Amino acid sequence: MPAAVGPATAPFDLDAALRRARIAARRLPALDRAAALKRVADALRRDASAILDANAGDVTRARDAGVSDALVDRLALSPERLAAIADAVVQVADLPDPVGRVLEGWRLPNGLEVRSVTVPFGVIGMVYESRPNVTVDAFALAFRAGSAAVLRGSADALASNRALVASMRGALASAPGVPAEAVDALTLIDDPDRARVTELLRARGRVDLVIPRGGAGLIRHVVETARVPVIETGVGNCHLYLHDDGDRDMALALLLDGKVRRPGVCNALETLLVHRDAADWLPRAAAALRGHGVSLHACDRAREVLAAAGLVEGVHAATEDDWATEYLGPEIAVRVVDGLDDAIEHVHRYGSQHSEAIVTRSRAAGRRFQAEVDAAVVYVNASTRFTDGFEFGFGAEIGISTQKLHARGPLGLRALVTVKHLVDGDGQVRG
Amino acid sequence: MPAAVGPATAPFDLDAALRRARIAARRLPALDRAAALKRVADALRRDASAILDANAGDVTRARDAGVSDALVDRLALSPERLAAIADAVVQVADLPDPVGRVLEGWRLPNGLEVRSVTVPFGVIGMVYESRPNVTVDAFALAFRAGSAAVLRGSADALASNRALVASMRGALASAPGVPAEAVDALTLIDDPDRARVTELLRARGRVDLVIPRGGAGLIRHVVETARVPVIETGVGNCHLYLHDDGDRDMALALLLDGKVRRPGVCNALETLLVHRDAADWLPRAAAALRGHGVSLHACDRAREVLAAAGLVEGVHAATEDDWATEYLGPEIAVRVVDGLDDAIEHVHRYGSQHSEAIVTRSRAAGRRFQAEVDAAVVYVNASTRFTDGFEFGFGAEIGISTQKLHARGPLGLRALVTVKHLVDGDGQVRG
Repeated sequence: MPAAVGPATAPFDLDAALRRARIAARRLPALDRAAALKRVADALRRDASAILDANAGDVTRARDAGVSDALVDRLALSPERLAAIADAVVQVADLPDPVGRVLEGWRLPNGLEVRSVTVPFGVIGMVYESRPNVTVDAFALAFRAGSAAVLRGSADALASNRALVASMRGALASAPGVPAEAVDALTLIDDPDRARVTELLRARGRVDLVIPRGGAGLIRHVVETARVPVIETGVGNCHLYLHDDGDRDMALALLLDGKVRRPGVCNALETLLVHRDAADWLPRAAAALRGHGVSLHACDRAREVLAAAGLVEGVHAATEDDWATEYLGPEIAVRVVDGLDDAIEHVHRYGSQHSEAIVTRSRAAGRRFQAEVDAAVVYVNASTRFTDGFEFGFGAEIGISTQKLHARGPLGLRALVTVKHLVDGDGQVRG
Repeated sequence: MPAAVGPATAPFDLDAALRRARIAARRLPALDRAAALKRVADALRRDASAILDANAGDVTRARDAGVSDALVDRLALSPERLAAIADAVVQVADLPDPVGRVLEGWRLPNGLEVRSVTVPFGVIGMVYESRPNVTVDAFALAFRAGSAAVLRGSADALASNRALVASMRGALASAPGVPAEAVDALTLIDDPDRARVTELLRARGRVDLVIPRGGAGLIRHVVETARVPVIETGVGNCHLYLHDDGDRDMALALLLDGKVRRPGVCNALETLLVHRDAADWLPRAAAALRGHGVSLHACDRAREVLAAAGLVEGVHAATEDDWATEYLGPEIAVRVVDGLDDAIEHVHRYGSQHSEAIVTRSRAAGRRFQAEVDAAVVYVNASTRFTDGFEFGFGAEIGISTQKLHARGPLGLRALVTVKHLVDGDGQVRG
């Protein structure tokens, strides 16, 4: 089995790894990448015990270091989780090839024929936190899209990532019809002191794209350090706005779906905005949230209404910071607004351009909210939780883009390619 | 007429300008931007003498400072050039609105309806060198695409740019149906000490996109300084490869079109690669180039062939640097290669992913060159000079993208928008 990483004693040679990744990348467009990925999935199943052993080591070290239960849970693999990870690789293999699609084609008056064709990026870097499944998902998506993946996971998960990568590289090395160089389409960076990640982020011309995946701090660090193209992902300060005419039952269902089911994800709700003429609904909403252990950071008007209904426990005075906070936990900011303009202004000021929702019966209000709110996804009468590659029908996703270049919202396989213009002529000159 | 820039004594308040630009940008999608741009074109014609006077001052100062004739020519406006600039604004106004196109739409199994709709970026920054026409073109394209433009031109052209911007802002301020805030959709940064450009490039969340346009040094500086999304443009180290079976007359025509007609542009040729079995064509090519005053930096094999034909004057030994140089002038690098693989490797190593061309009669060679060369545009039997927004049928362009995110090749109006996903439901929750 080829070494997944360099020896622990010498610093990892990123420059050499990037050169090998580039050579591998050039072999990928012509490969049967779907078949190779199915062998990768088989290898992950076959190597399960080695992978789970390595992961158990990471988990023990994390526990000994006093890492929180929530983080340990993100890190931990089980036979079921590993099987699901392998299944996801097969699903990615079964997605249509995003490479080689002719997006459009036209003929110029001088007879030149132009085609815009999807092509791989080349070398895609991925910087992420402790979930070991990202190691597999990111490789599978990049590889299916014809690009080499250079992965920089967290130190917490290093043993798990090494085992996963060794298994997958082993599968590539032994897959029929796959040239030997293609094994370097998967590289794990060994980076105990964070020097290599900086090098990766500044490798202009050698890395075509870096995607960070993780918390706000990681993403900020990547964006501020990078000199290579980056697609920013993930921070979601998402709002639900109940307009005066909105269906109260529907609003309650969307609120609980957005805040309670999985509060730790980026498409979860963080702020509830309520039209002043719908503020009488607030006690019902607050009681339901409290029933699920959610505490509220409410504006003065909201607290007044809640206090009048006897709801004071777990209801705090909201500060300016609350409007901008992505809690990712059982807390929510609540504000009474004067109307649609006020709600849009609030979202404009504090939103992170991820996912925003309005509950309304008014066609005009829904249209204005969708037109004026600047976000990757703007919902009328639906939960923000649908911002997800699978839910959108894209298949697996590598993250949710919260920037405006290239792709916005769920980044599925088809966002992981670029285009090339092919021009065919008979000697045309511009003159 | 509103002030285009702050008073010369106080530093320009970029933060305030960006806030005003954001407010202006939010008013643009709903405006008749085409009609407003036609008034801008009228104003440029009406204010011609003031603009030309201001430009004459810039030209005099540049001459006095010993600036080269070529740069002075880039800076100088004439009544004809200014009329052409105004005409170009009308052409941009007449292009179809890129905002509000539904790119695709689909229905999810749960009944949710998703539409991907084009929307403006918001605030677009433009950093460029001395050509005053960029001031007008960049504003017109950004504005037509519904975004506010924040322009940072060079100090050389400051008086010209101030006059152009004052004229255009005057037109916006007086256009019927245009709200007063919309005048801030055009801002010129007054930045004598380069501090503001750094601030612009780091204004995360306040600038949605920056496009640099100029020489390699400017582009490198922008990419290395920026923390906001950037589309890299313009450096073109373009190659023409004559395959063994290629039509020699055609190759000569493409060579002269690419190297001689306008050597200072990014889609001009910088390196000629010739199959060893076509090297007998080199003396003819070299003689034609020499006849147009082009000097050659040739590899040993090429120099041998040329010397045998008596061609030594103006033929220099190529160094490693020559292969990587964008001459932008009457020089060309020349190399004899062993075949298609060798040619592709050379382009891979030294090309800037802009425009590359092969001359061949072979279907297989053409297909392999187009498949394996990594560039924005790959030509078979046509001149690299066609990489241009007008030639591609996109209309005016804001630059040629040489990176892989968002858009590649000529950046026309339709590359200056992003998308938003609109989702309509009836209370769907993910559960």
